[in-house]
Amino acid sequence: MCRNWGAVFGVADVADLFEHFERGTYRGREYRYLPDARHGVERGTAILGSAVVRGFPSIPRVLVLDPGIVECFDGPVTVEEKLNGYNVRVADVRPDEWDDSDPDDPVGPLAFTRSGRVCRYTTEVVREQCDLDPFFVDHPDLMVCGELVGPENPYTAHDYDDVESVAFRVFDLRDRETGDPLPVERRRGLCADYGFDQVRSFGTDDPETAVDSVAEAIDELDEHGREGVVLAGADGERRLKYTTSAIHRSDLAHAFALPFDYGRQFVFSRVIREMFQAVERDESAAETRERARRLGESILLPAVETVRAVDRGEVVGEEHTVRGDPAVLDALLAQFRDQGLDVHVRADRREGDERVVEFVKRASATRDKTAHYLDGGIVDE
Amino acid sequence: MCRNWGAVFGVADVADLFEHFERGTYRGREYRYLPDARHGVERGTAILGSAVVRGFPSIPRVLVLDPGIVECFDGPVTVEEKLNGYNVRVADVRPDEWDDSDPDDPVGPLAFTRSGRVCRYTTEVVREQCDLDPFFVDHPDLMVCGELVGPENPYTAHDYDDVESVAFRVFDLRDRETGDPLPVERRRGLCADYGFDQVRSFGTDDPETAVDSVAEAIDELDEHGREGVVLAGADGERRLKYTTSAIHRSDLAHAFALPFDYGRQFVFSRVIREMFQAVERDESAAETRERARRLGESILLPAVETVRAVDRGEVVGEEHTVRGDPAVLDALLAQFRDQGLDVHVRADRREGDERVVEFVKRASATRDKTAHYLDGGIVDE
Repeated sequence: MCRNWGAVFGVADVADLFEHFERGTYRGREYRYLPDARHGVERGTAILGSAVVRGFPSIPRVLVLDPGIVECFDGPVTVEEKLNGYNVRVADVRPDEWDDSDPDDPVGPLAFTRSGRVCRYTTEVVREQCDLDPFFVDHPDLMVCGELVGPENPYTAHDYDDVESVAFRVFDLRDRETGDPLPVERRRGLCADYGFDQVRSFGTDDPETAVDSVAEAIDELDEHGREGVVLAGADGERRLKYTTSAIHRSDLAHAFALPFDYGRQFVFSRVIREMFQAVERDESAAETRERARRLGESILLPAVETVRAVDRGEVVGEEHTVRGDPAVLDALLAQFRDQGLDVHVRADRREGDERVVEFVKRASATRDKTAHYLDGGIVDE
Repeated sequence: MCRNWGAVFGVADVADLFEHFERGTYRGREYRYLPDARHGVERGTAILGSAVVRGFPSIPRVLVLDPGIVECFDGPVTVEEKLNGYNVRVADVRPDEWDDSDPDDPVGPLAFTRSGRVCRYTTEVVREQCDLDPFFVDHPDLMVCGELVGPENPYTAHDYDDVESVAFRVFDLRDRETGDPLPVERRRGLCADYGFDQVRSFGTDDPETAVDSVAEAIDELDEHGREGVVLAGADGERRLKYTTSAIHRSDLAHAFALPFDYGRQFVFSRVIREMFQAVERDESAAETRERARRLGESILLPAVETVRAVDRGEVVGEEHTVRGDPAVLDALLAQFRDQGLDVHVRADRREGDERVVEFVKRASATRDKTAHYLDGGIVDE
């Protein structure tokens, strides 16, 4: 289990790196994860015994497609849809790598959230939705990276027409230890071979042509309230993202429904995206005014609703519905409570074999600050 | 010149306090000023030899009038207009306190900006606009606190119907060393006696009644695009401010005209003010929607204009016009350059005896970041 971690991570001061790892457990087995990027090692990197599961890299964004795309790529660019859910990596850590103390409980493929925690709920969902075993038999050193989307999920719930509860859509296959991605064409081919649902591709173009094809894709996605696109060079290394006005507004509406928890950190970046998009699209004064009005509505209206809800004494927070195996949902709620989240269960019922839990992650900053100000509390400036 | 500063400021660790003072000069004389509050000593406190000019205290704000006003005050409350300009304190520091090396150049009353700098331009303006000498002969230990307003000022330019260029409106008389205010009635009486223009009073009420009278005053001020009110208890100690939707939007429009210089620090606080105001006024859905739209317009429209201006290669920044004695305007521009501001003079002409300078304080963050993103630069997230 003892490896030369300096060489694995390419980091000189391994002791300092390891100080920033936190400890988690999965079914009694202990692992470590890195909740924030350090020493060039990605946020979400996990260590399970001798196995490493690298964090998913952050993808840079451009604010204008022209010349953003041409500046970034010098060869063919594949344009794929970026979905609005939560980022999941699935890796098949073997007991001989990690902890083989209980031979009756083999580990099996595990799902990691963006921060590097193993999520038992997500693990169950991806195992149900994907036939992972044949893939990992052939490719034990890869991890399957995808977005867990749909209205019934415990992290980022968002409606998609074709998703009733939750769905897993693959957007990457990477070496789990180095994080190196497969080339795009090979990745899409492998996903097709193993029957994985993958994100939609809008095709491959040279960078100059991609400017227009991305603009068209964004128009279509925006109209349907979808998030945006990720561009990738042929080798899969270079990436770039660009998003729709619809998701900027949707992000703001979510953030300002809980203004003192999320508003401040969201608002400026979304305004910036909107302002460059308005300029690049060469909008008329009337079009920009309409964009501005919708921006304002997405900020203020949910915030006003929340102040009123606090005034009525209602619970405010992120509302989620999850369904599945009763024990797995217990584990999910226990996991949230371990993380210090204040979870309030609104409803808990059976539908056939499944348990359905509706819960709220209480937003304490929004509740407390809103109540303080409604009580006539002062703002020191 | 050597005083017991610990006793003057009521601070144990005077050495640490003094480390945070910066040095400035006025006509060759050196002084110190405190650009940020420390050890309970107000931002803007200045020391000139043995003389102390205390900083103007920050005034707390409430987000709802009811019960905000009643929570804060337990006796009569005077409601006065809060003007949108820059905060100035005027004190008559005597040469024997500071520096009497040049008897041919007596100091005379000096104007201090909020951060504690002596501003020669402002000093000239207040000396011209107010007959200060009779006041300081009778009250040498007081300072005159007021707002310098009007379209032609070098800090916060804002139009007022009755102000053609600049005007000084007194809102406080305080002990210059302790910062203690005079009672409101005595202050307004003294200002009248010495002929100082003062801020408008909306009258004095008990706290319960003030809730309604402030709401009415705010309606009227909002309609005229004016800033808001400051409430004060009879002794002048306790203060509270409350502002109009018009000024929230105006602040946002100014901030987002230079988004990367000011947008981030302004946006959240103004949204918060708007959301509580909408709730307290018990607005209909249509009224809140209209408020939200105007909020969005005040954020996005100026920002889009600025991105276009940078794209055209224009200078972007805070635009000001000042008029006055040519040597004083030279001193003002030199003072800005000493402070590290990048000042671009757009026009410089004579009108009769006066010199009129139009200049821009270049906003380098907005210029550089906007150009970077327009060139396809990436945003790392």
